[in-house]
Amino acid sequence: MLEKLKTPDDLKKLDEKELDALCGEIRKTIIETVARNGGHLAPNLGTVELTVALHRVFDCPSDKIFFDVGHQAYTHKLLTGRAENFSSLRLDDGLSGFPSRNESPFDSFIAGHAGTAVSAAMGFACVRDLEGKDFHAVAVVGDGSLINGITLEALNNVRSHCKNLIIVLNDNKMSISSSVGALRNYLNRIITGTAYNRFKAAAKMAVRRLPGSAGLIENIQKTEAALKRLIVPGFFFEELGIRYIGPVNGHNISELTKTFSSVKKFNRPVIVHVITEKGHGCDYAVKAPERFHGTAAFDPDTGRAEPSSGRTFSSAFGETLLREAKKDPSILAVTAAMPSGTGLAPFAKAFPERFFDTGITEGHAMTFAAGLAAAGKKAVIPVYATFLQRALDNVFHDICLQDLPVVICADRAGLVEDGPTHHGFGDLPFLLSLPNISILSPKDPGELSLMLSAALKHPHSVLLRYPRGSCDLAAFSLAESAPVVWGKAETLKEGKDLLIWTMGRECETALKTAELLEEKKISCTVVNGRFYKPFDEKLFLSLAGKMPAVTIEDAVSGTGADSLTDSLLANVPHKRVLHFSWPKDTVLPHGTIPGIRKKFRFTPEDIAEEIGKKLF
Amino acid sequence: MLEKLKTPDDLKKLDEKELDALCGEIRKTIIETVARNGGHLAPNLGTVELTVALHRVFDCPSDKIFFDVGHQAYTHKLLTGRAENFSSLRLDDGLSGFPSRNESPFDSFIAGHAGTAVSAAMGFACVRDLEGKDFHAVAVVGDGSLINGITLEALNNVRSHCKNLIIVLNDNKMSISSSVGALRNYLNRIITGTAYNRFKAAAKMAVRRLPGSAGLIENIQKTEAALKRLIVPGFFFEELGIRYIGPVNGHNISELTKTFSSVKKFNRPVIVHVITEKGHGCDYAVKAPERFHGTAAFDPDTGRAEPSSGRTFSSAFGETLLREAKKDPSILAVTAAMPSGTGLAPFAKAFPERFFDTGITEGHAMTFAAGLAAAGKKAVIPVYATFLQRALDNVFHDICLQDLPVVICADRAGLVEDGPTHHGFGDLPFLLSLPNISILSPKDPGELSLMLSAALKHPHSVLLRYPRGSCDLAAFSLAESAPVVWGKAETLKEGKDLLIWTMGRECETALKTAELLEEKKISCTVVNGRFYKPFDEKLFLSLAGKMPAVTIEDAVSGTGADSLTDSLLANVPHKRVLHFSWPKDTVLPHGTIPGIRKKFRFTPEDIAEEIGKKLF
Repeated sequence: MLEKLKTPDDLKKLDEKELDALCGEIRKTIIETVARNGGHLAPNLGTVELTVALHRVFDCPSDKIFFDVGHQAYTHKLLTGRAENFSSLRLDDGLSGFPSRNESPFDSFIAGHAGTAVSAAMGFACVRDLEGKDFHAVAVVGDGSLINGITLEALNNVRSHCKNLIIVLNDNKMSISSSVGALRNYLNRIITGTAYNRFKAAAKMAVRRLPGSAGLIENIQKTEAALKRLIVPGFFFEELGIRYIGPVNGHNISELTKTFSSVKKFNRPVIVHVITEKGHGCDYAVKAPERFHGTAAFDPDTGRAEPSSGRTFSSAFGETLLREAKKDPSILAVTAAMPSGTGLAPFAKAFPERFFDTGITEGHAMTFAAGLAAAGKKAVIPVYATFLQRALDNVFHDICLQDLPVVICADRAGLVEDGPTHHGFGDLPFLLSLPNISILSPKDPGELSLMLSAALKHPHSVLLRYPRGSCDLAAFSLAESAPVVWGKAETLKEGKDLLIWTMGRECETALKTAELLEEKKISCTVVNGRFYKPFDEKLFLSLAGKMPAVTIEDAVSGTGADSLTDSLLANVPHKRVLHFSWPKDTVLPHGTIPGIRKKFRFTPEDIAEEIGKKLF
Repeated sequence: MLEKLKTPDDLKKLDEKELDALCGEIRKTIIETVARNGGHLAPNLGTVELTVALHRVFDCPSDKIFFDVGHQAYTHKLLTGRAENFSSLRLDDGLSGFPSRNESPFDSFIAGHAGTAVSAAMGFACVRDLEGKDFHAVAVVGDGSLINGITLEALNNVRSHCKNLIIVLNDNKMSISSSVGALRNYLNRIITGTAYNRFKAAAKMAVRRLPGSAGLIENIQKTEAALKRLIVPGFFFEELGIRYIGPVNGHNISELTKTFSSVKKFNRPVIVHVITEKGHGCDYAVKAPERFHGTAAFDPDTGRAEPSSGRTFSSAFGETLLREAKKDPSILAVTAAMPSGTGLAPFAKAFPERFFDTGITEGHAMTFAAGLAAAGKKAVIPVYATFLQRALDNVFHDICLQDLPVVICADRAGLVEDGPTHHGFGDLPFLLSLPNISILSPKDPGELSLMLSAALKHPHSVLLRYPRGSCDLAAFSLAESAPVVWGKAETLKEGKDLLIWTMGRECETALKTAELLEEKKISCTVVNGRFYKPFDEKLFLSLAGKMPAVTIEDAVSGTGADSLTDSLLANVPHKRVLHFSWPKDTVLPHGTIPGIRKKFRFTPEDIAEEIGKKLF
């Protein structure tokens, strides 16, 4: 059935009775594709009926749907002409895992980071109102994103700037892990119908203090049912000038369709509170929505996956933090809704009172961590590098300017599979420019462990940057990692013809490159730079004076060791230098890491060939 | 009286009757000092009684006060041992205009950017609770900052993480200009007592639909007064788990003292809603609170100031935008609460329907601007460079990745007088690393005008960076600014011994330096680089091959033209190169621009001397 739906118009022609079968087919397609290619499973299974209902009621692409974060848009892709290509999801040159304006006119706006949908939808709604057009702008926002500062800023603004805007609050009680905070509790009170209880109690108290109040209390009890049903659930949103409708069962297409058809006619901003289940229709995903939020390949029948091979950077972070925290009670940990992905879960379990999950609020989380540090504690905050970009000003303003000992661990730094919105590059150039912070990159999980232990003893702020997954250098028979000496690089291999200076996981690339070059009798010194800041200038200069030098790093050209070394060499005699990194002025795509490396000529073979051509 | 108050303990010893006189003395001191040194007037005059009351009730420094943004902390400084030094406010080596942990143990946390106080206070409160201590953490937050995303993220979080925390909502209905948005309207409804009206109407509607409702409506009317008084005002905050108290007259010390004494005993987070008047006690400041928010020197009796001499960068921005907008109806403008400071006011007046003030919400404002652009408009967003740091991820995610034509104007870029939190440097290294954006720096307001016109025709995103104030190059008898050719530098002066490559307002420094060198018979080529990105590599390389080169720029070392040029020269024969910029790994202080230049040897004289020593 799915293959025949070329556009949402085809969907509108279907009988209501056919929709169940369609949803089943969509689920099957999503499960099979994600099981094969990896991707976001549970959030997409939760929005099947919701998306079908949206496309039955609204007319895309003239109406615009904005998927916040964008990890729930697979059904949207399947219903907007991309079913045929769906098997290429997340593969090299295949469909993106996120909405993309380049991919389809049905994708109104990019997504990947949380909290942007309402602001973007407001932009379209304002232009619509200015031009006197009458399409609909619909922002689909999860309850996890609702509490993000950008969403909240937009909610405060929407009524002032837009005649109407439809916000679908996709409430599955989860961000990646369970949602947290007061608004979460508020939504729970709405769902369970107890939102009114506190109000009721307060009202009674108030009335008791009045003379002759007995009758009034009774009156309040009588009016209660009416008030409760019609007024109170969305009071919080209503005070922001946004009409609240809900809660609505997010897996009942007919209920959703009726609701959306009715709110289409509203002449003011509205929130439709839709209750969905993450992983809906797939037992193992419902049982473990966090495990199946984003996942590598697995068995579609059982949900089982190959046990992950070996220690990852994230797990090394988690183990080391736990070990150090047992010795040092001043260590506290903060996360912005990423307790599992970052490896914090063991710490959270062992020290719940020393663990703070702020929800998807990187800015607040960072300043809060600065507050913990200013109050005398050692704060550790692991965060995906790409999301750290949300908190750069907080690192500058609250941490670096005050020289506070916060250890920021940028997980998923550098190139990742998820694509443009998720590559983690921007933290490096910004933080390199700040005072009082050191920046380290470990070559493998073992070195991360050494560096984290050292960072926790360092009396200033530290940024540790490391990639997703693992890096196994066993093949290279290296000596054990040297102890971490602040600002000192580590020589992995000595040779006389070429210096290869590298950082972090690119040590593997560098060592492989050196092997290839040595086959051609080019003998290489390979240095693991370890520190972006303070940079080991002395070692670099002493080596680069003697032999040509190359740098290899998982960074955007001009933002890391390449420009640092160019500046060091500006006025000293030196041999030729070459730099290998990701090209600037380029939107790096999604895809497999090896695929992207190949495309951009960033494999050991490419690098060795280039070195051969240019330097020897 | 003020001189005798060495610590807040001395303040506690005063009679209630003496407080009026004290507040008068504080106001006089603030007015005289700001009239002489420049600084923040209206916000500080609004918080005199509030701060006196806080220090009467709380015991600092064991209790901690967190001033959000920090531009309202002068009274706090005067009451915590800094009255004697207060005349040095904002001067070189004098008191900072903002709270600073380096300056006093009474300053719990840095401030300068909006929205951080609650998060920071939460950090202290959590550590307090963990350690079983019992001090108070008090965050003083303006209504302008209340709607900042970081504050809202923290409000959602405070109840989950903190046993108690006192938030003083300093409501003067202003950020720098008038506050905007739904929460502003909500606070107005509280203040005017009409918060309940909508609720009441809805309740009546609800009840009308029930059978036999006539009596119920009457009942609702009876209970109304009680409900209104005791329940409804703070419902929004109460739903976040935060007790609401208020509104309280913020200029009545006895009312404030009573309220603070009572909330001290609360065992949960509380918001005390305090109504203050910006500029209170000073006629001209009350009448023009925006003019007197932050100000240069003026006559303390009349408020009159020297008419500003000539055209500033901000005013050139405003004029040019207005002129272009008259020709091109697709131009829309967005501001995050800075319509006047950035020069947007004339545009806002001429085209109110094309002007959007989002409040202090840089992240949302940027994504909203991206939405306007994606919907087919040309969006212009002027923002102070230091506050642009709050929206870097939005520039990356929503603008650059989608290649949208948004013109970002970073006003107050580079060094400013206000100090560490306000220098505008971090946008440059971050944005230099992104695709699809050009970065330009005009040498004077006239060139800004040319560049803005060109940027508005450019089909991609553009960042224009320029400093506060003006720059008058009339003394140098230059030819008229050449038309802007994308990616091309402008040669200001030709010579054969030395290349001086400079950017933005440092053209003035460079031209003066060249004059000094020419006295020593060193003939200089001076190039106004114009573009950081795309950089005019060809011109630079052709000149740097012939003569030694220096770069002069208002940037942190290693983040701009210095590293760009070092990289260009890495593998080509060239003469010596020197770079002049602000040192890295340094917290640059507040003070006068000439004073800071002198301190860091960044005057034409220093630069000419250094060039003479090192290159000739």
